[in-house]
Amino acid sequence: MQKLHVIKIGGNVIDNSENLHRFLKDFTALKGFKILIHGGGKVATQISESMGVSANMVDGRRITDIDTLRIVTMVYAGLINKNIVAQLQRYGTNAIGLTGADGDFIRATKRPIKTIDYGFVGDLSDKSINPGNISKLLEAGFTPVFCALTHDGEGQLLNTNADTIASALAVALSTLYETTLIYCFEKKGVLQDINDDDSLIKEINPERYEKLKTGQIIHSGMIPKLDNAFAAISCGVKSVIIGHSDDLGQLKGTQTFGTRLTN
Amino acid sequence: MQKLHVIKIGGNVIDNSENLHRFLKDFTALKGFKILIHGGGKVATQISESMGVSANMVDGRRITDIDTLRIVTMVYAGLINKNIVAQLQRYGTNAIGLTGADGDFIRATKRPIKTIDYGFVGDLSDKSINPGNISKLLEAGFTPVFCALTHDGEGQLLNTNADTIASALAVALSTLYETTLIYCFEKKGVLQDINDDDSLIKEINPERYEKLKTGQIIHSGMIPKLDNAFAAISCGVKSVIIGHSDDLGQLKGTQTFGTRLTN
Repeated sequence: MQKLHVIKIGGNVIDNSENLHRFLKDFTALKGFKILIHGGGKVATQISESMGVSANMVDGRRITDIDTLRIVTMVYAGLINKNIVAQLQRYGTNAIGLTGADGDFIRATKRPIKTIDYGFVGDLSDKSINPGNISKLLEAGFTPVFCALTHDGEGQLLNTNADTIASALAVALSTLYETTLIYCFEKKGVLQDINDDDSLIKEINPERYEKLKTGQIIHSGMIPKLDNAFAAISCGVKSVIIGHSDDLGQLKGTQTFGTRLTN
Repeated sequence: MQKLHVIKIGGNVIDNSENLHRFLKDFTALKGFKILIHGGGKVATQISESMGVSANMVDGRRITDIDTLRIVTMVYAGLINKNIVAQLQRYGTNAIGLTGADGDFIRATKRPIKTIDYGFVGDLSDKSINPGNISKLLEAGFTPVFCALTHDGEGQLLNTNADTIASALAVALSTLYETTLIYCFEKKGVLQDINDDDSLIKEINPERYEKLKTGQIIHSGMIPKLDNAFAAISCGVKSVIIGHSDDLGQLKGTQTFGTRLTN
């Protein structure tokens, strides 16, 4: 099986031009098949405000109303995505910028209204990803760059969490490739002491994960992230790396970075 | 040689939801390889205004300053492009929405400053299009949908006229496919009498074109469009159709629509 890296970046990369360029160079240097997924960053909020569209919150949760969907379509799929693609081309990666509507790659279901109507938010199922179509693009020599938008197959674009897209892509493509899922965030990885970057835990398997939770070394914020990562591993992903975008360049041959989660 | 249709639509399709849906259904029904190119429409102007960015004009020509480039990247590559893609998916076309930066498909040169600095406007040369890369996408079963943006290969997106992109794509791909270039606009085609839709001229070859110009049947506005069309034909495009988007459905087997320009 050929290797595939599925890499998700967030606001700390997108909002900082220096971080972004360093990351995109390191991403380009990474050998083999790869897919990039990016979230939004502060620019979406700035543009919303400049257009007089304020965040619509219900019970502390952000709602994707029609105006917000228009803005995220412009910012995620247009401004951020196409600038990343143009930069990757500059560095030598033959990138193609995508939403889940393109190529019917990621089909979602509009979240049903229970107590809260989240608006145009799409949830993924285990049938959402079209690995065959994505594989055609990879095999043709292109590097897909996905933003956090999907579609329902009926003409409706939907806002979908970028972490969830990354995990679903990695799981679906692990049937075709030896897949590593990488979450880049603002920390070095999972830390023994959250205030000490030198306390990085380099490897966690499910057994150690249980001990770290019992010992309250891993706290509330990290638990959903790690639960999702181990779920991806149990669905076929070979390993999950959680680390800082600045350290991607360390991923070469047998060298790795951040915290590696394995089975 | 397999057949390819390269079809350009403008504001009269994009700005009118009913026209757009009819067109996208007819586009889906069209057999064989196809590429769609779209321009901007009124929505770009509306969004610019809502963001307080006014059109920057010098000597009556629109300038693409950095704010305008940001807006057209959001509107063309995001809002318009991805909504067209989602609708095409709904009707059964496996569309992928693109700028010229994606896949390095269309590389342009920033227009040099002579008397006017047009800003981030890209001009095409006969080396701009990458027909091999576009062909990979077509052969993999995808239908490219291009907006009016290109890149310079150095990380800079550029605003490029959609008519010019359509013509350059058709010429470059005519080495691989039997290519028909179609310009959809708000008229039935080239008219003998501009006020009479029934006066459609169904076919024009270079000889007849000279006569129509000499007889002042074809007037100023149409001449550059037709000159470009005949230039495309002399560079290998099999024929060019100029007609109304509503009539695309008539293009079946030996049937055609609008005005067909041939060699």
